[in-house]
Amino acid sequence: MDYVRYFQDRLNDIKDEGRYRIFAELERQRGQFPTAHYYPETEEPAVEGVTVWCSNDYLGMGQNSRVIDVMKEALDKCGAGAGGTRNIAGTNHYHALLEAELAGLHNKESSLLFTSGYVANMTTLMTLGHGIEGCILYSDALNHNSMIEGIRHSRAEKRIWKHNDLKDLERLLAADDPDAPKIIIFESVYSMDGDIAPIREIIDLAKKYNALTFLDEVHAVGMYGPHGGGVAEREGLMDEIDIIQGTLAKAFGVIGGYIAASREIIDFVRSFGKGFIFTTALPPSIAAGALESVRILKQDDLIRQRHQERARTLKEKLRRAGFPVMPSVCHIVPVEVGDPVACKQVTDLLMEKHKIYVQPINYPTVPRGTERIRLTPSPLHDDATMDRLIEALKDVWDILSLTRAA
Amino acid sequence: MDYVRYFQDRLNDIKDEGRYRIFAELERQRGQFPTAHYYPETEEPAVEGVTVWCSNDYLGMGQNSRVIDVMKEALDKCGAGAGGTRNIAGTNHYHALLEAELAGLHNKESSLLFTSGYVANMTTLMTLGHGIEGCILYSDALNHNSMIEGIRHSRAEKRIWKHNDLKDLERLLAADDPDAPKIIIFESVYSMDGDIAPIREIIDLAKKYNALTFLDEVHAVGMYGPHGGGVAEREGLMDEIDIIQGTLAKAFGVIGGYIAASREIIDFVRSFGKGFIFTTALPPSIAAGALESVRILKQDDLIRQRHQERARTLKEKLRRAGFPVMPSVCHIVPVEVGDPVACKQVTDLLMEKHKIYVQPINYPTVPRGTERIRLTPSPLHDDATMDRLIEALKDVWDILSLTRAA
Ligand SMILES: Cc1ncc(COP(=O)(O)O)c(C=O)c1O
Ligand SMILES: Cc1ncc(COP(=O)(O)O)c(C=O)c1O
Repeated sequence: MDYVRYFQDRLNDIKDEGRYRIFAELERQRGQFPTAHYYPETEEPAVEGVTVWCSNDYLGMGQNSRVIDVMKEALDKCGAGAGGTRNIAGTNHYHALLEAELAGLHNKESSLLFTSGYVANMTTLMTLGHGIEGCILYSDALNHNSMIEGIRHSRAEKRIWKHNDLKDLERLLAADDPDAPKIIIFESVYSMDGDIAPIREIIDLAKKYNALTFLDEVHAVGMYGPHGGGVAEREGLMDEIDIIQGTLAKAFGVIGGYIAASREIIDFVRSFGKGFIFTTALPPSIAAGALESVRILKQDDLIRQRHQERARTLKEKLRRAGFPVMPSVCHIVPVEVGDPVACKQVTDLLMEKHKIYVQPINYPTVPRGTERIRLTPSPLHDDATMDRLIEALKDVWDILSLTRAA
Repeated sequence: MDYVRYFQDRLNDIKDEGRYRIFAELERQRGQFPTAHYYPETEEPAVEGVTVWCSNDYLGMGQNSRVIDVMKEALDKCGAGAGGTRNIAGTNHYHALLEAELAGLHNKESSLLFTSGYVANMTTLMTLGHGIEGCILYSDALNHNSMIEGIRHSRAEKRIWKHNDLKDLERLLAADDPDAPKIIIFESVYSMDGDIAPIREIIDLAKKYNALTFLDEVHAVGMYGPHGGGVAEREGLMDEIDIIQGTLAKAFGVIGGYIAASREIIDFVRSFGKGFIFTTALPPSIAAGALESVRILKQDDLIRQRHQERARTLKEKLRRAGFPVMPSVCHIVPVEVGDPVACKQVTDLLMEKHKIYVQPINYPTVPRGTERIRLTPSPLHDDATMDRLIEALKDVWDILSLTRAA
């Protein structure tokens, strides 16, 4: 066995397919979001004044001065890290406050923090799927990898239902033993297309077939509902979802993940979830910052309105200029390119000629032939910034002879 | 299926076994480590002036003022969070600097950051075990849960060898197809007993059987070797280990995890590791703080000497007072109680009567009958603090009629 050769061969495979990833090295400039410095791979000095158009810090909370201030205070008060796992010396007062705040946000009895949204999904689904004997997991076909891995790793029976297809979900539920424990697992906002699940109808099916519901609101918390509780809050359905999962790393602008649910479910995952138990807790400053961010967004409905307005305006401007904006019912604005090579050329030219940073989205993240750029207008992307983007896209579209509607 | 009842029953099972965990809510006081405020479960006000004796912030770097200062600077400069996954807008200049620093620390070509040491182990082993066709994984019987889960989830063939038993490892290696790819997976410092693996001999076996080696140095980085590269550095063996894994959350005092290895291995895990790809990157301030901590400890060999001296002194003081200190060849000081109920009583009394916080370590973390308290003296635990601990232990031992040597 020649290990080096083996790794090289596998890497060459993805290079040949055009799927090898090179990370754009950035330094976002606090106070000037969405602006960043960009460090090219070569030794050149950093490029200043680059506009980031694909961040998931959707509301720009990562530069909110109250959030930054409480983080600095917590650093001064408690130091850099938690100093242990949650069970051994690592539970800080801020963790307890944040868990209470998140339970309140989703109107649940309890909540549980994880080091990330990824670990929240994986650990929770693994723990429930493995821990509930004979459990069957029903997973939307487009669920995020963190849920897929949790489901696989649980080794529970699984059924994949066609994306957002209620008939298919019901067909699968009806075919299984009515007495078997069941969990229906889905997202509210699907982040590559910007479509939203039929939550009401899924809840109805869950009730009919006595299944628990697990809803990933990672791309919705902070942004939807009168207090930022997510799409389920907006639709008045939070109380009917058993487990709501979210991240502190996107609209809340920091890092970390969580679930909110009944006391029993939280205590079960807290007590048996390996990925929760055997790892160092989030630093106090992170918990403090996230807590402040959640509190601010609970009250600031204006920022949510402005966010939605910005997304509508960008879609409108792009459509007027003839760009193929894909259907999206939320704040995510995908523009189809339809070819992996062209997609990469678009984003390279945007950076080189226009200091605009967008990441190309190619297979396997999206189906072949639907390669796209995925724009995330925040409340900080003003009209002038949008107009510069449109002009840059026109230029790049022309250079590459891509088509625009008349 | 009655879900609530099901969860309650499982929780009652562990309550009956005395394994139900209640987290001690703390607030470490920066500038006064190892002192913390303690928030009791009941509504009482916080208890001030509690001494923490079981943190894994082994060197107290979590309150180092240079670390805190660079974290605050990075917050001011770049904001609270990374704003995206490593591939989509989330790679920050500090990540690149830290990865270069960690590669240098371990004298490897390259390194890769993860959100935690847990995710580093799990993702790396899952990716290699799954990605190298026909790979067989050899795992020490006492490996940490993060490795066990990565191994299980990879679905590769696995062999468990008796803890630190070279004969058993060789027996297993010899029994398998010589042409099959193989990885030997072990820790340097085992954190519950404080024993250390025979690294030299394991490397010899790996060479003889053409296996890769994966070494978890979570409880050693920062603390062993002339630059804090871990036990493998101390023994001059870093270059002969293929993959060194570490955490930024223990001796380095912050949060996050990493691996250091050849360019090919790192690029392979970077390109295929799901738990690396599909999650928000560490905040810039975290990467900046960890970078500073690694740099400081590279140069500060005195703190390592003081740390070892403190551990020796505590063991000595405990032995002289007749306490059953378990054999440990490192900075971890386990004192055996040998009974789960007594163990919990010891720690409860230490807190209630003496404001000393230690967590009881019971089954399944350690074998039944070896229940213990696990003390972690840092350079900040001075003689007076140690003497107070000894007096408190004497008092508690007397109250509970536990035996001490004459
Ligand atoms: C739907 C979904 N769930 C979970 C996650 C993981 O969240 P985190 O970045 O906090 O790990 C992501 C993306 O990062 C996501 O898109
Ligand atoms: C041996 C070992 N490896 C890995 C980990 C996980 O590291 P982290 O806390 O950074 O997730 C731990 C404990 O936390 C550990 O004891």
